[in-house]
Amino acid sequence: MTTINNTSKATALRTHTCGELNASHAGQTVTLSGWLDSKRNHGGVLFINLRDLYGITQVVADPGGPAFKTAEEAKSEYALRVTGKVRQRPGANANKHMPTGEIELEALEIQVLNASLPLPFDLGEHAGVSEETRLKYRFLDLRRPRMAKNLVLRSRLSRIIRDYLYDLDFNEVETPMLTRSTPEGARDFVVPSRNNPGEFYALPQSPQQFKQVLMMSGMDRYFQLARNFRDEELRSDRQPEHTQVDLEMSFVDEQDIARVVEGMMKAVFASLGDEVSGPFPEMEFSDVMLKYGSDKPDLRYSLEIKDCSDLFKTSEFKVFSGALADGGVVRAIRGEGAAVFSRGDMDKLTELVKRLGAKGLVWLRFKDGKWESPTLKFISEAEQAALKERLGVKDGDAVFLAADKAAVAAPCLGALRNELIARLKPAAIKKWAFLWVRHFPLLEKDAESGNWTFTHNPFTAPLPEEAHKLDTDPGNIRSAQYDLVLNGVELGSGSVRNHSRAMQEKIFALMGYDKEQVQKRFGMIVNAMDFGAPPHGGIGMGYDRLIGLICGTESIRDVIAFPKTTSGACLMSDAPSTIDAKQLKELHLKIEN
Amino acid sequence: MTTINNTSKATALRTHTCGELNASHAGQTVTLSGWLDSKRNHGGVLFINLRDLYGITQVVADPGGPAFKTAEEAKSEYALRVTGKVRQRPGANANKHMPTGEIELEALEIQVLNASLPLPFDLGEHAGVSEETRLKYRFLDLRRPRMAKNLVLRSRLSRIIRDYLYDLDFNEVETPMLTRSTPEGARDFVVPSRNNPGEFYALPQSPQQFKQVLMMSGMDRYFQLARNFRDEELRSDRQPEHTQVDLEMSFVDEQDIARVVEGMMKAVFASLGDEVSGPFPEMEFSDVMLKYGSDKPDLRYSLEIKDCSDLFKTSEFKVFSGALADGGVVRAIRGEGAAVFSRGDMDKLTELVKRLGAKGLVWLRFKDGKWESPTLKFISEAEQAALKERLGVKDGDAVFLAADKAAVAAPCLGALRNELIARLKPAAIKKWAFLWVRHFPLLEKDAESGNWTFTHNPFTAPLPEEAHKLDTDPGNIRSAQYDLVLNGVELGSGSVRNHSRAMQEKIFALMGYDKEQVQKRFGMIVNAMDFGAPPHGGIGMGYDRLIGLICGTESIRDVIAFPKTTSGACLMSDAPSTIDAKQLKELHLKIEN
Repeated sequence: MTTINNTSKATALRTHTCGELNASHAGQTVTLSGWLDSKRNHGGVLFINLRDLYGITQVVADPGGPAFKTAEEAKSEYALRVTGKVRQRPGANANKHMPTGEIELEALEIQVLNASLPLPFDLGEHAGVSEETRLKYRFLDLRRPRMAKNLVLRSRLSRIIRDYLYDLDFNEVETPMLTRSTPEGARDFVVPSRNNPGEFYALPQSPQQFKQVLMMSGMDRYFQLARNFRDEELRSDRQPEHTQVDLEMSFVDEQDIARVVEGMMKAVFASLGDEVSGPFPEMEFSDVMLKYGSDKPDLRYSLEIKDCSDLFKTSEFKVFSGALADGGVVRAIRGEGAAVFSRGDMDKLTELVKRLGAKGLVWLRFKDGKWESPTLKFISEAEQAALKERLGVKDGDAVFLAADKAAVAAPCLGALRNELIARLKPAAIKKWAFLWVRHFPLLEKDAESGNWTFTHNPFTAPLPEEAHKLDTDPGNIRSAQYDLVLNGVELGSGSVRNHSRAMQEKIFALMGYDKEQVQKRFGMIVNAMDFGAPPHGGIGMGYDRLIGLICGTESIRDVIAFPKTTSGACLMSDAPSTIDAKQLKELHLKIEN
Repeated sequence: MTTINNTSKATALRTHTCGELNASHAGQTVTLSGWLDSKRNHGGVLFINLRDLYGITQVVADPGGPAFKTAEEAKSEYALRVTGKVRQRPGANANKHMPTGEIELEALEIQVLNASLPLPFDLGEHAGVSEETRLKYRFLDLRRPRMAKNLVLRSRLSRIIRDYLYDLDFNEVETPMLTRSTPEGARDFVVPSRNNPGEFYALPQSPQQFKQVLMMSGMDRYFQLARNFRDEELRSDRQPEHTQVDLEMSFVDEQDIARVVEGMMKAVFASLGDEVSGPFPEMEFSDVMLKYGSDKPDLRYSLEIKDCSDLFKTSEFKVFSGALADGGVVRAIRGEGAAVFSRGDMDKLTELVKRLGAKGLVWLRFKDGKWESPTLKFISEAEQAALKERLGVKDGDAVFLAADKAAVAAPCLGALRNELIARLKPAAIKKWAFLWVRHFPLLEKDAESGNWTFTHNPFTAPLPEEAHKLDTDPGNIRSAQYDLVLNGVELGSGSVRNHSRAMQEKIFALMGYDKEQVQKRFGMIVNAMDFGAPPHGGIGMGYDRLIGLICGTESIRDVIAFPKTTSGACLMSDAPSTIDAKQLKELHLKIEN
């Protein structure tokens, strides 16, 4: 019988882990269990690197020794149990790169706990393996130290987040997974109800409505590390299920929520040894679109878009003056050192902005004190000088200009900004660049229906001082909606919510829902508003994205234990799959081809 | 702008909560936000009890004062924001039953944050309200302090469990919700895959296979507070989704896992001020069935079933000697003070055991030094005396005997034991009675197919010393399967698992699966066994049940924020519901009536 003793991880099959022995253990007889990571023969003596989650210990089996035969038979990834004597390595043989490098284990007995077939791929970090193979053999892929470290970090940071919120008296409340389908937003995954033929549950896209109801229940401060589901066309950074750090607070304004989130981020990054200082910078949505051409700019880099409309009002260059006359803008961005871009490079950048709706891209290189550009002749010398001053152009730079409606110019220059960062690799001014983007428009026109629709969330409140425009100018209302951006990634999105039924119904009415439809689709939440619903607000933050950023992974699949492929398949368990005809019948369903 | 300051819960709308003011705050001007819990008029002065999650503060509005008019208008459950001056109540007026009873708040301004319609039911704890109404208005039901306390406790204990496991270096890993359907066990909820027409995901009944794969991935110690799903006929203690404290460890035996779980329970109950001492008692499954007639006996009570077969081998009472001759048993239980049971009571107890398959129930009352029973004449005086001695019968007791196959006698007497506890209300010998029931049979005959089937979990390992019986006597193999029982409730179930593919396939073969079927249904886990899978084991524990026991609730619905009815409906959100024809078409599904 074993107990959780001195080294908390001693069990029936080991006295220590493979990561903890050092010179102080010399002379002790210990038992380790783990996997054969590598083996080498050095003058007849066998050296086995035994690996577990916690580290690697070198095991030595001498020829003629009691464990030699098994050591000889054992192959890569065999699960072994080794009893042996810890001995200090002679100074010259100590391995300073290994935490256990001071010692080795002289094997007295090796037991094969389980053999292994030859591996389908090498577990070395740099082995080139297709992602398909990695996902099929995920149980092996996760043995790679980098992958294991990602999962351990994911677990450890969730503890830090929970502790931080518990200490602020948040309660974690589990909201249902079998919920009601609402046709808004992305597509729901649905679950047929056997007990209610023809009816379906929906898996939640977020706990949004339930967490608001919790505020109306007086729960005051809620959080949850919640699983969310969206049946979308998958992209490399999307999964059908993802985890959200979800929180909601009563009796708060935007700033209260921001301070809570900033404290959480500080706690997370402090645990990684990185200091993150707050309050985080805040920008109005309209300003951020002007300055960075994106609502999730990567502020590790200082590149800024400058409005140059005033310089070209009376320009002879019709591309500029025409756009301005049409109510458009002329905006520009400077690429430091971009004068090295070839004509081919410039063509590619032009293609990029054209894909985003621009008619073209005006560019000018500034080299050896001279401008060069195919369109230089249309731009007067005074305009050139003003442009140079406005953008702070130095020798070796290039300038890129977009002349268009603001709604086109902004994303084009935003994409160009990202491309300039990728190509020019400017020095980052900080490691972690947080930004609050605030006051998104409450409503925008839905392209299909022509109705007003929410930009983020149908429950977001208008800024109180702008709510009066609901009757007169609904497209021009700033909302209490904010996004948290980190290094160019939208990490979270939240708002202060409507708590008045009248206000909520007015917004739904603009979106084309009459009272009956509101009752049918959102009855739970509007009914709860009738009974003293408190002012409240919150945020949902993508946990996979956060961990992905911290781990520096290319894909969030590297921070999820068992992810799906882009077609929604689990290659290891072979899900989804067909089900029995009997089960289909019980569900009153038939498959149609 | 507000910050998280001295009282971590100050926000834009309050400086303090309704639970924290005391005499030390006297003289301060503060702002509270909360709900109008009650209001009374005392000689023209209005007293409002303002409630939030943290407590109640008495607000006083003097006639003619600045807040009087709003105080007069405010009704039950209005959300109010009150700014006022804290004043100490004169000694005689202090309310010792209220944490804030030393003070009251002299209202300077009351703002109605939101009005409330008249409530559909009173929020008082003792108001008789149907559960249907409570569930429809769950947002109001959760405002009752008892319900709010349950959810807060649920959150707080999850923190204690997680902290305990983190401190033992467990990592929480999120396993998928969209998994592969396996036809074993209970019925799966399924999720049609739009991208793979005709195919379905299943919601997990438990993370069993994924957590075992994590051990095979080298994750060493895994846990998760996991949501599980079962499409069952619902009973009062079942929900379609429930939460499980799920854990798995590598390189362990049964005792390692038991010690971890015991430590967790000690931490949980210590946080409630209850000391729970371990190791917990352990009993073999066969012993517990003999002694208590149930694999989840309530050991708060000392009643024991006694085998009396030896006393009646040669009895003239054919009910006894006949059952024994047929290979059956005669077992008895003593009801202390049960001699008061009427003939009608005895008939009801007889009905109870008949429903469980017994032919009848033999009972004897012992009153004033004499036995009385309709069957007394068949039992010799020597047998009467021996019975009295065996059971320790005292005046006023009754004795109940079952003579049948052990498989019938055991559950009948187990049910009788529970009924005796319910009727006789014996003194509990402890508040929290934990029990490990160990070594369940590995296999039993499936009534329908006649095949061997697992008793708990197809991945459970046989006890190593009994594995050889797989070839010769599969029905008689004890397994490394254990249940944790608390106060008569099965709290958790776990086992040491098979880690050898050969052993796992042998067990599946006994269950009637050939290699191809095993590969199709359990491919993920048996494939992983091929690559050095380590010995491992774990347990899953019902979190709703644990919290239900601790909160002393009748139903686990009282510890779940938004539960379903027994027909699987959410009365508040009206789930499940029909979905659009368009969505059905996208899923390639048709509803059949």
